[in-house]
Amino acid sequence: MYKIYETKERVTADNDKEAEKLRSYLKEKNVFFVNLMGSPGAGKTSTLTRIINALKDKYNIGVMEADVDSSVDAETISKLGVKVIQLHSGGLCHMDADMTRRGVDMFGIEDLDLVFLENIGNLVCPAEFDVGSAIRMMILSVPEGDDKPLKYPLMFTVSDCMLINKIDTKEIFDFNEELCRERAKKLNPDISIFPVSCKDGTGFDELVSWLETKITEWRNS
Amino acid sequence: MYKIYETKERVTADNDKEAEKLRSYLKEKNVFFVNLMGSPGAGKTSTLTRIINALKDKYNIGVMEADVDSSVDAETISKLGVKVIQLHSGGLCHMDADMTRRGVDMFGIEDLDLVFLENIGNLVCPAEFDVGSAIRMMILSVPEGDDKPLKYPLMFTVSDCMLINKIDTKEIFDFNEELCRERAKKLNPDISIFPVSCKDGTGFDELVSWLETKITEWRNS
Repeated sequence: MYKIYETKERVTADNDKEAEKLRSYLKEKNVFFVNLMGSPGAGKTSTLTRIINALKDKYNIGVMEADVDSSVDAETISKLGVKVIQLHSGGLCHMDADMTRRGVDMFGIEDLDLVFLENIGNLVCPAEFDVGSAIRMMILSVPEGDDKPLKYPLMFTVSDCMLINKIDTKEIFDFNEELCRERAKKLNPDISIFPVSCKDGTGFDELVSWLETKITEWRNS
Repeated sequence: MYKIYETKERVTADNDKEAEKLRSYLKEKNVFFVNLMGSPGAGKTSTLTRIINALKDKYNIGVMEADVDSSVDAETISKLGVKVIQLHSGGLCHMDADMTRRGVDMFGIEDLDLVFLENIGNLVCPAEFDVGSAIRMMILSVPEGDDKPLKYPLMFTVSDCMLINKIDTKEIFDFNEELCRERAKKLNPDISIFPVSCKDGTGFDELVSWLETKITEWRNS
């Protein structure tokens, strides 16, 4: 037996307004903006690397790397020959719309048509803060466990697609993919799910083709 | 090439005062309090299960399970026959000292001598918020990668010990244990490091013995 105790609530109304403004601005500029989220080590940078390599000849891509205070990922991504900016949150565990807009202003997006924000590694707060993206992409990695939709439901609820990364290690971690899919779909029936492996490339053709469809739909909307 | 942009800073002065008050109170009550932190899926609940099974005949143990809004872990821990309370943060990504003190008040610690807080799965904010614990224990799991001390330095800087969990998967993930240790020690030369596996029990004898030494030192301080 245990007691349940609710501690605090958070207000994000202003953020939603800022996010809508940024989304309209980016639509006007024809920049498709993806908010990429996931736990530390889920494989956000490796996923971006695979997507960028698949799409960089077709789109002008930019990446905003958000980190608490290092620049490790910006260094990795800048080697791919795309435009990169490093945003430091100064300790904060997520990006909000205002911080993102300031990042966009500094970045300069006039020459771009596809921009990714690699959000700070965290399954909690980034889910609460709309950053004005066209879509939200989240990564759960197999070693984190198939119970994560139960424990961090908001992330699964707000995301347009969910990557199950490191799928090649499914057997080692007794990861129940079907159960994980069910748990995510229960929270969000519309979520698109892609089992992928950044290591061997599994699933990236499907993911990239889904992303391109989304871009086309958005351009025609 | 990329630009670096500092977005925000956070003030935690009041929290530090609250934390000191709670720490003094717990010392008076002779309750050794451990703040357990790590990413989602790093193995916090499995680690607690191993520690509790090793120590429950010697200590009266209590566990405060902090979660965004589920009770999955409290259910698991309550089966071990120790006192458990579930704290819900209502969306917040960390516990602060005030929330923890309110949890302690509701929990009732008079009959306990060893209390764990399983903090919310997050490598960022929990590191910033002293919750009044005697020690801070953090878990990094092998699949997260050996570069995490570079990306989330504060967590490694403030922790008394670091568990490298899922050490049995070191080869699969090309995890460089020596490099990871070096990176952590560079941030925090005093950190005690324990490679462990919740799956096969590796390293828990050493960890539990270290923990008991810490409790004895604290009681004699």
